Amino acid sequence: IKTTPARGKQLIMGKKSPIILDCTLRDGGLTNKSQFSLKTVRTVYQAACRAGIDFIELGYRNSKSLFSPSEYGPWRFCDEQQLCKVVAGLKQGNTKISIMQDAHKADSEDIIPKPDSVVDMIRIATYGNDISKAIILANNASDKGYQTTINIMAISQVETKVLNIILQKIQAETKVEAVYIVDSYGALYPENINSLIKKFQFYLENKKIGIHCHNNQQLAFANTIKGFKSGVDFLDATLFGFGRAAGNCPVELLVGYLRNPKYDISPLLDVIKKEMFSHNKEIEWGYQIPYMLTGILDKHPHAALEWMKSPNKFDFVQFYDNLSD
Amino acid sequence: IKTTPARGKQLIMGKKSPIILDCTLRDGGLTNKSQFSLKTVRTVYQAACRAGIDFIELGYRNSKSLFSPSEYGPWRFCDEQQLCKVVAGLKQGNTKISIMQDAHKADSEDIIPKPDSVVDMIRIATYGNDISKAIILANNASDKGYQTTINIMAISQVETKVLNIILQKIQAETKVEAVYIVDSYGALYPENINSLIKKFQFYLENKKIGIHCHNNQQLAFANTIKGFKSGVDFLDATLFGFGRAAGNCPVELLVGYLRNPKYDISPLLDVIKKEMFSHNKEIEWGYQIPYMLTGILDKHPHAALEWMKSPNKFDFVQFYDNLSD
Repeated sequence: IKTTPARGKQLIMGKKSPIILDCTLRDGGLTNKSQFSLKTVRTVYQAACRAGIDFIELGYRNSKSLFSPSEYGPWRFCDEQQLCKVVAGLKQGNTKISIMQDAHKADSEDIIPKPDSVVDMIRIATYGNDISKAIILANNASDKGYQTTINIMAISQVETKVLNIILQKIQAETKVEAVYIVDSYGALYPENINSLIKKFQFYLENKKIGIHCHNNQQLAFANTIKGFKSGVDFLDATLFGFGRAAGNCPVELLVGYLRNPKYDISPLLDVIKKEMFSHNKEIEWGYQIPYMLTGILDKHPHAALEWMKSPNKFDFVQFYDNLSD
Repeated sequence: IKTTPARGKQLIMGKKSPIILDCTLRDGGLTNKSQFSLKTVRTVYQAACRAGIDFIELGYRNSKSLFSPSEYGPWRFCDEQQLCKVVAGLKQGNTKISIMQDAHKADSEDIIPKPDSVVDMIRIATYGNDISKAIILANNASDKGYQTTINIMAISQVETKVLNIILQKIQAETKVEAVYIVDSYGALYPENINSLIKKFQFYLENKKIGIHCHNNQQLAFANTIKGFKSGVDFLDATLFGFGRAAGNCPVELLVGYLRNPKYDISPLLDVIKKEMFSHNKEIEWGYQIPYMLTGILDKHPHAALEWMKSPNKFDFVQFYDNLSD
């Protein structure tokens, strides 16, 4: 088995051990309503295990009253028996399994006790104003025996004072293992990362920090490694950067950079080929001007996603004018 | 006319004024043997002028004895009368024109005196071991009245002691306005940039510093803005990041980041649409695993460019094994 590439002149490995979480299937599920085949999910799962990726996120466990199972695929719900089909007969190695619940779109009762589940960690994604819901869901999962995180979405739009209160609440009211910086809009620059992390470190005790970046300004990888160097533990990434709108931090770049012997890049390269993450043009995603513009203007990519479906999707100046109004 | 986007919360403009050099046509000419139509070149030129880009590089002035004019387009040679056709009837504004000579592929006698030329600046690209040739060409152009730069290619592979000598020679023997860091292999990480710039600043007096990055690891933009924050003056970029292999730093991202009122992003968005830099699939370029691998391994993209022409171009693990041998 090939290990990560050796770098001739410089060893850039960090002092502490990184924790990579591959969320190709969960975040990428936003591009196709989580309609991956079981075969694809098993192939990606196996590649992550072989590559030594620390966590693989198989999808959302969101509410069937909010997402219709006739419209959305099984990875929007991640029923326990469905997850059993993923892992059946495959070597798991040291790779753990996570799923995500959206604070405003999920139910506590959908979480069964950990001893009955193949899931190791449940991550709660939340906007700032849903933090109370997020805390309820996180505590529900913690109490049932799971590792948990709270992921603060659209962090570029959370006011400083509000963020301080959120972090204090999480510290006081939860047992989450980590709190995530989520740059949902791809609006952050590397120079913004360090002060955010310092703030997280100030308010959080005995909790890890995570980072999840988007590529609207081609900075997802740069911001992620800046985070790692500034003290972040959990690093989110996806195969080839696959994900909604401009996509995410590419996991192969992260593994190449970290040069940590616990990872093997080859299974990742192989599954990128097999599942055509680098060359499937059926799904529209990746760096495009409309996504870049919502990133620069620090806005949700909604408007850009709609624009990219229109016949005049290349009228970038028109889109920019609409956005700026 | 629309100015650059305003950022709600933070003003990230640098203290000193940036100098953007758009090299879409020169660097992009490596993808198509410099076979752009005159119409395309005029359209790009006009957009750069309208956007307030400081320099636009129209191509190479390399030797016709080394590149056959029957095989290579006019922008590999940039004959003076050809350049006159570009600018004829168009408003130039404050945008200056540059061309490039490769130290090992160009002749002094191809440079006419500045008063007879539409060119403002001549940039000499050189590998470390061709520095003496580069200095001759740079002095030739300086003496004929042009602004000049020397661009040190493949800087990630130049040994420290050799680089020190090169910088001392440039300081002692030339009148170049700027010396460029060129990350030809896309191998540098943001954390490598500052120490390189410090070295340049140590050896160079009264000279500016430039940076030219490639996107093999999706770090061209991140490295460029890291350079700007660390004291670099000249920032190379291309429309949508167009360029050989993984491409370059996208100029629209740079303008969006700098938020400097001398630039207007709209003409750039418009020409990206008009000339299809974001959606012309005839030319193979952009982030792909083979280019990523040469970047990580700090190698010239030659092997990856060849591999991407082969029928098994998606056999990434095979390519990685070949490269690592």
